[in-house]
Amino acid sequence: MTTTLIDDIGLLVTNDPAVGSLTAEVTDAAVVIEDGVIRWVGSASRAPAADERVDAAGRCVIPGFVDSHSHLMFAGDRADEFEARMTGQTYTAGGIRRTVAATRAASDDALLGNSQRLVAEMRSQGTTTVEIKSGYGLDVLDESRALRLAQKLTTETTYLGAHVVPSEFADDPAGYVDLVTGEMLAECAPHARWVDVFCDTGAFDVDQARAVLQAGQAAGLGARMHAGQLGFSGGVQLAVELGAASVDHCTFLSDEDIDALAGGSTVATLLPGVEFSTRQPYPDARRLIDAGVTVALACDCNPGSSFTSSMPFCIAVAVRDMKMSPAEALWAATAGGAEALWRDDVGVIREGARADLVLLDAPSYVHLAYRPGVPLVSRVF
Amino acid sequence: MTTTLIDDIGLLVTNDPAVGSLTAEVTDAAVVIEDGVIRWVGSASRAPAADERVDAAGRCVIPGFVDSHSHLMFAGDRADEFEARMTGQTYTAGGIRRTVAATRAASDDALLGNSQRLVAEMRSQGTTTVEIKSGYGLDVLDESRALRLAQKLTTETTYLGAHVVPSEFADDPAGYVDLVTGEMLAECAPHARWVDVFCDTGAFDVDQARAVLQAGQAAGLGARMHAGQLGFSGGVQLAVELGAASVDHCTFLSDEDIDALAGGSTVATLLPGVEFSTRQPYPDARRLIDAGVTVALACDCNPGSSFTSSMPFCIAVAVRDMKMSPAEALWAATAGGAEALWRDDVGVIREGARADLVLLDAPSYVHLAYRPGVPLVSRVF
Ligand SMILES: [Zn+2]
Ligand SMILES: [Zn+2]
Repeated sequence: MTTTLIDDIGLLVTNDPAVGSLTAEVTDAAVVIEDGVIRWVGSASRAPAADERVDAAGRCVIPGFVDSHSHLMFAGDRADEFEARMTGQTYTAGGIRRTVAATRAASDDALLGNSQRLVAEMRSQGTTTVEIKSGYGLDVLDESRALRLAQKLTTETTYLGAHVVPSEFADDPAGYVDLVTGEMLAECAPHARWVDVFCDTGAFDVDQARAVLQAGQAAGLGARMHAGQLGFSGGVQLAVELGAASVDHCTFLSDEDIDALAGGSTVATLLPGVEFSTRQPYPDARRLIDAGVTVALACDCNPGSSFTSSMPFCIAVAVRDMKMSPAEALWAATAGGAEALWRDDVGVIREGARADLVLLDAPSYVHLAYRPGVPLVSRVF
Repeated sequence: MTTTLIDDIGLLVTNDPAVGSLTAEVTDAAVVIEDGVIRWVGSASRAPAADERVDAAGRCVIPGFVDSHSHLMFAGDRADEFEARMTGQTYTAGGIRRTVAATRAASDDALLGNSQRLVAEMRSQGTTTVEIKSGYGLDVLDESRALRLAQKLTTETTYLGAHVVPSEFADDPAGYVDLVTGEMLAECAPHARWVDVFCDTGAFDVDQARAVLQAGQAAGLGARMHAGQLGFSGGVQLAVELGAASVDHCTFLSDEDIDALAGGSTVATLLPGVEFSTRQPYPDARRLIDAGVTVALACDCNPGSSFTSSMPFCIAVAVRDMKMSPAEALWAATAGGAEALWRDDVGVIREGARADLVLLDAPSYVHLAYRPGVPLVSRVF
């Protein structure tokens, strides 16, 4: 195997939990990688020899971003709906159900090609681990198809049959929950690592969400949840009670929700692209962090409420509008995302972890917020 | 000369003022360019033959961005100051004067190299015309040096000796205005197209600003102004009175300021990167547009208050936080910037204009806001 020395790293963010500080920063550092695994991390002056050498030229290296929440298996876009929303026009043509119709009508090649393009776009912006949900099929064949295709792109596949109730079940939501927890789950579970449910105003209530997640857990899937995007649903406390890996959005949180999160092991994943793209108020990251809750950041890349694939953009908004420090935002976008996926081999730069590294065209990760919108990812390992 | 046909343009934004609508959009279009000039614009089905053909594959082509406000002639960065501001720590180490010290100490090669790198970064994000100011020299030699170097990069060079009063004139601001309007102007005017002054709280007052701009105009320079960033200075009305091309920032505007702008020919250039990076409230773009004022958008790229070089980022923020429509924001970032520089050969796609075109990796310019932070510039002509 070829060993590669990444040398003259001006600032290395390791996120190594063995070090006390949040981002565990090392100056004048070097890293040796071999066959996709990190073999050595330390001071540049003590770096071992390697077959190849990459000169970081004093710039900053960070762990690859871990984007723990995306909806990439879809067809079509909804730019017209976005434009109408931004210009104050009413728009009634479809929302999620419009994407469901386009996704069902798309060929496997079209679906896979679109998601491959978005994964490549993410990677060029420094994302090296991505979770991908189903949720625009909403029938047995199309949900399982989405997950089979997503498996070609990531190990972090999530069954989200319970995204919304499809129009054909509009009069029988209980019947749809039966399908999601029955035949659809049986077809989807072999292709998924996670089960998810949208527990919010106008989507699924707490009883339905409990049924969906418990059925998924019984089938061997880890649980995660969408909650608190549109209102107070009780979903956050349910997620903690069921031991979900993450509860995502968390814009509307009661004091009891905060207490539950602080007392449990569920990560609160914040998705600022959604608030940016819908002009909603941002989640209160400081309230969560100050209560001791583990916070992650993700893009929620989807054609309706947040069509960004840029973790640097989410970091910049989290710093500006959610008052996270640059270090907190970077940690949340890397190690936080890893915790939200129960992973300890990504989001961290330590011996034995995956060699997912990003060389920034900047001396510090602070520049991800200091230079908003600027493509600063120089190279992705 | 080689002619190039850009064919199969799904959506072409021409900004042609001969067409009634703001962005003057054409579907299924083509453009022929030759030697950096646009030779033909029209429907793809009627496109003439050309030596080369570029297939836009149904995507969107827009005029190159015209970034009419930047401070690229500097050395050093101030990431630590940004981080302190974002984390609520007090920070007293220098501000603009810190950049002045670093800039004076830098070699010509270092200054030019840094600005070349930033111009290239802008170009990769679709900016094809950039204005560059001096203002970190603040003495005769360093101001004229900055402008000589800036001339290597753009024809739109701006003499901003009146950026702040340098520390060596702290007790004699009147003496500094005499220098700016006297010997410094004489050395700088041959290398500048524009004269600018920072007329705001803690900088130069209206009388000083009048002296600076009138001296510059007498030396043959066009006038522009920074005003309304920090407070109500009276600068906006002075800019209109003196026939300035543009007054930039416009965050604090009185009703009288709005009336003056609506009755004059001065463009109001808004710089949302500044408000993003300082957590200040955004300027009220709707109030200006609804009053009939011409609005431009620019990055104000500088190491202190706005270190973005991304016009797409500024467009996204203008749509989200300043309630501009996607079409208004695009126009302001192209044709609006051109008006702010008294240019009619850029910011527009029509026969005879410069062939500054941007092919987006998207079917519509709406995606610049719909897909925030995502690098969507596929190719720059
Ligand atoms: Zn989601
Ligand atoms: Zn400025």
